[in-house]
Order: sequence, then C-alpha cells, then structure tokens
Amino acid sequence: MSTREDIEQGTEFTPKFDDNGLITAIAQDAETGQILMVAYMNRQALDLTIQTGYATYFSRARQKLWKKGEESGHFQKVEQILVDCDQDCLILKVTVDAGQCHVGYQSCFYRALNMTTDKRLEFIAKKVYNPKEIYKT
Amino acid sequence: MSTREDIEQGTEFTPKFDDNGLITAIAQDAETGQILMVAYMNRQALDLTIQTGYATYFSRARQKLWKKGEESGHFQKVEQILVDCDQDCLILKVTVDAGQCHVGYQSCFYRALNMTTDKRLEFIAKKVYNPKEIYKT
Repeated sequence: MSTREDIEQGTEFTPKFDDNGLITAIAQDAETGQILMVAYMNRQALDLTIQTGYATYFSRARQKLWKKGEESGHFQKVEQILVDCDQDCLILKVTVDAGQCHVGYQSCFYRALNMTTDKRLEFIAKKVYNPKEIYKT
Repeated sequence: MSTREDIEQGTEFTPKFDDNGLITAIAQDAETGQILMVAYMNRQALDLTIQTGYATYFSRARQKLWKKGEESGHFQKVEQILVDCDQDCLILKVTVDAGQCHVGYQSCFYRALNMTTDKRLEFIAKKVYNPKEIYKT
C-alpha cells in the first residue's frame, strides 16, 4: 500500500483507477498547449497507450477499448504522459494532424460560456473538417 | 430533454453532472496554456464560480465546497469557461499568482512517466513555494 507521500512525492507510477476502473486522461496538443479532449482509460487502455505510443482510451458509451483515430484516421501520437499529485488524472501530450473532435472541430472545447448570461454558449472555433465525410455510419 | 444535436451544436449551456452530481473541471493557465489542476464541481460550485469570477470546486475528499485559495491564498481568477462537445467537462481559463498545487508546485502535473520503463516517474518541475509555510495544519 502506497502512502500519501509515496503517491505525491515518489517516483513510482501508481495510477489510481476509480470504482469503474477508469482514470481521466486529458489530451493536450504538445506543440500549442491546446486541450483537445478529455477521455477515460482503463488499465488495458493505458498499457496499450504506453506500449504503442498512440492514445487508446476506454469508451464509456460503447464499453470497449477505443484507439483514437481508428475510425477517423486522426490518431494521437503520445509524446509524454504526465500524472498529477494524487495520481488520479493523466495528461497526454500528443501530436495530431487534423481535427480531434467528432463534431468537426480541432478541439472538443469549441464553445465558451458567456459569463454575463450564465447559460449561453458562444462558438470560439471553426470546424476544420466535415465529419460526414469521415464517419460513414 | 436536450437532443444530442442541441448538446453538441447548440448555444444553450446544459452542463451534464455525473451520478454524484459532479462535473470535471480543468484549470488551465490563461496566459501560458499550462494545465494546473483537475477538480470537480457540483451545481452550486459552478454557480458560485460564475457569479464570483473565482474558481470554487467541490472537494470529494472533504465533501464540501472549496473556494480554491481559501487556505493558501492562491485564488484562481476565471477569465473564461469552455465546455466540451457533450458538455460533461469544463475548462476554466484562469489567472493565478503562485503555485496551484498543495504539494508546492505551480501545477499538479509535476511528474512525467518515463515511457521506456512504464512505471517510473521523473520530476519535470521545481517547487515554487513551501507548502509547510502556507498550510498551517
């Protein structure tokens, strides 16, 4: 059993998976710093990511492993994996080619809250590809 | 009930809280793009954040609202809130003064995985303050 000090100050990687066996993973563009998406990994997805050097997640909706880009072709090459103090969250610094969001944007975070209204969103990005041309379903 | 298209392509802010009433929030330095920490908000924490302009989270460990900086003095001034495609994750673009991690670092992500070993971490940052001087407990 790792102590809190081991976890926070140590050099052993002991990722903490939640009750569903998942850990949060943030994909961040290694070059620009833009946050592209947030997804989840189980142990196997994390191992595959480390072994292959390409991001594999666990899809909660589909309940299966999901190599990012397997449908769209937009893979994420993992340059670095960072872990936070309590080791329950990861950042994947990734190199990507084109749009990373299935809606058609470079990042899933393409809307900002209008802080004066507290419930209206404003689009802050333009689509970089047409998802209908990529996702054939 | 919002449709998937409303949620993904619409301009209404309909944050999706999980079974515990929480939504993931990533604090990102508005100036540098550095990801500082990941925490959780319940509805009240989100409302307070929007109303006050300073980040308030819900501490899962302590099961209570937690205005970031209430103990350390290191508040997060919220410049912008972004939401992702399915509206179950937020980015807070924040302005901060000093270290944001309770361990003493600017960011909670102060260690990177050595990808050739798959279980060793390497420190990639230096402490920016001494937590013992700030947290008096």
